[in-house]
Amino acid sequence: MNDRIAYFDYAATTFMPESVIDSINQYHKDINVAPNRGGSSIGIKANKLFEDSRAYIRNFFTDSDFELIFYPGATYAINAIAYGLEHMIEPMDIILIGPYEHHSNYLPWRELASRKKAILFEMPLLSNGDIDFEYLKEIKERVKIISYSSVANTNGYTLSTVRLKEIFGDDIIYISDDSQKCAHSRFRKNEMADCNIVNSHKMYGPKSLAGALVNKKFLNHLNPSIFGGGMVERVGFPNVWKLGVQKYEPGSIDVANCIGWKEACKYMNEFGFDHIKFLEKRYSSEILEELRKKSKVTIVSAGESTSIVSFWHKNIHAHDVEEIFSNNGIIVRAGHICSQNSIAKFSMKPIVRISLGIGIEGYDVERIVNVIRGYL
Amino acid sequence: MNDRIAYFDYAATTFMPESVIDSINQYHKDINVAPNRGGSSIGIKANKLFEDSRAYIRNFFTDSDFELIFYPGATYAINAIAYGLEHMIEPMDIILIGPYEHHSNYLPWRELASRKKAILFEMPLLSNGDIDFEYLKEIKERVKIISYSSVANTNGYTLSTVRLKEIFGDDIIYISDDSQKCAHSRFRKNEMADCNIVNSHKMYGPKSLAGALVNKKFLNHLNPSIFGGGMVERVGFPNVWKLGVQKYEPGSIDVANCIGWKEACKYMNEFGFDHIKFLEKRYSSEILEELRKKSKVTIVSAGESTSIVSFWHKNIHAHDVEEIFSNNGIIVRAGHICSQNSIAKFSMKPIVRISLGIGIEGYDVERIVNVIRGYL
Repeated sequence: MNDRIAYFDYAATTFMPESVIDSINQYHKDINVAPNRGGSSIGIKANKLFEDSRAYIRNFFTDSDFELIFYPGATYAINAIAYGLEHMIEPMDIILIGPYEHHSNYLPWRELASRKKAILFEMPLLSNGDIDFEYLKEIKERVKIISYSSVANTNGYTLSTVRLKEIFGDDIIYISDDSQKCAHSRFRKNEMADCNIVNSHKMYGPKSLAGALVNKKFLNHLNPSIFGGGMVERVGFPNVWKLGVQKYEPGSIDVANCIGWKEACKYMNEFGFDHIKFLEKRYSSEILEELRKKSKVTIVSAGESTSIVSFWHKNIHAHDVEEIFSNNGIIVRAGHICSQNSIAKFSMKPIVRISLGIGIEGYDVERIVNVIRGYL
Repeated sequence: MNDRIAYFDYAATTFMPESVIDSINQYHKDINVAPNRGGSSIGIKANKLFEDSRAYIRNFFTDSDFELIFYPGATYAINAIAYGLEHMIEPMDIILIGPYEHHSNYLPWRELASRKKAILFEMPLLSNGDIDFEYLKEIKERVKIISYSSVANTNGYTLSTVRLKEIFGDDIIYISDDSQKCAHSRFRKNEMADCNIVNSHKMYGPKSLAGALVNKKFLNHLNPSIFGGGMVERVGFPNVWKLGVQKYEPGSIDVANCIGWKEACKYMNEFGFDHIKFLEKRYSSEILEELRKKSKVTIVSAGESTSIVSFWHKNIHAHDVEEIFSNNGIIVRAGHICSQNSIAKFSMKPIVRISLGIGIEGYDVERIVNVIRGYL
């Protein structure tokens, strides 16, 4: 990372540490080939490194009750899954989504609902911004799929699968988009959904790679929806798909990225979630403290997540705040943050988002606090 | 590349030269962020590098009558396109595909046909293995989309858009999968389809990135089919998609890979297609000459492509041939090569494929010729 830059946009993407970059380069130089493409000496090495990486990443999050499907990004993952569950949806069924969803966990479901004459329903809110769980009980019978961000990318609102399961039981499909969680909180077995989207580039790994941690129940429902090489055992009428997760992984996967993601998990393990949380809490408190002194600033981020601080300013447009920060060598995010419908619910205006991660130091926080003090 | 290895599987994937790897690393270290995600100093640089790369890659192939859409791989490109053209297909329409298609240009169309009760029709062959163009005239009226590999990955069979246009005219949609062409032959304007799939990792660029070179006619027909951040101007009823190609590019694109692909185009320009062709012809002739001496070997690759030599052996299974090569430090490909229905048409058995590209030297060819001489 350029050392003149103080980067506060970890919720968008993270920088890879050298260990990750080196592991990627090494693979591209030495082996390079795609997995499941041949029995040559390097083909066999590719397969082994691929499956070893898959197992390591899976184990970073959870245990063998879940399998990890690789996708070329979280957006493609959710789209492929929405197409793959389309057969479950009947007219007038409800697809329920979280109240504060980014476009990638909103638009694919809305399009699915539209194709099947089903209903896309956003969890309704109480006036305090929390979900109206009582209302959800009323619509319970028609809900087939629930998809929600465990941590919202706009305001850090957290939503627990456990709370939803109390209402909806075990018969429906739960999909948790953990893009904003995977770099910040340990996954706990009893809190996992049937499908949990995790995202390499939000956690110090390479881009163009994400994963779905899925249980057997979910696999039983998910049809292949993206078709190509490597996922079919025998082409015929009907086709015979490969067993396990391979049938969802067509095309040439870059094993280097899987290895890079594995290295990113190691990097996070070295820090440890306790230390990550400790620093996040300290830094977000310092930033919030300064923002609270500003009479024209309205803080909109929820209390529970400590990695996202968002706000708007009465007199300065979010993009102008972004520019003020940028002129001082500080990178934040501003605007609708690919979450228009989410932001409309809690903010009068486009927001500024400061998001935290490994690599931020006290000095960076001092700099951002000084800019808040001087300009907002 | 490991210097003990003689790599002859360029049709599967290519190694990136240092200039490409360096450009990717540089971006990840200095800028790293996704395009169209912010107005900060690095966000603006990201956007510029992204669009500069897009323009350079487009210009490498053709001119501004075509636009380049980025996808996370050729398989995902064809699937997204098949979903995006679904609205065009009525029951009993014909989707026509080439005779020698790999699974990525076969299965997405077959699934589309199945969803819409349409007909997937593979171009029929004459006994000499060429397409029966006369027959195609008979079914002309019901054909809406034609998708075909300009060079087949199994036997190198070449298929020209010009020849198809003579029969089907300008009203239908032509999609040319140029995955096996883009590293070997110059694109000529008058030979281009409405949509031309090009693939970074087949031409010395990074994996997880491919493109569709599309004309205005094609864009007018293509609906967005993968939904997420960065492709919507305003979420509402109806949504307002972004203009131009952005509406087909949801999610966080890795600009580094786009820059890497641009560098790969430069690398190819340095060699030049004339030189590439010259070496391919020489090397494939030497290999073919040796194979022809072997009474148990049946050569199945077509004459026109000079980058793919494929064959089967009467007594030695393809995977055993692969292993013999591999034991001698030579990487080839064997089996059904993700193209079962293609191979069934011209080969009694699974095949061995030797494929050529930049980086192969006379010494490597000598080694493969020696193994053919000694073992087959």
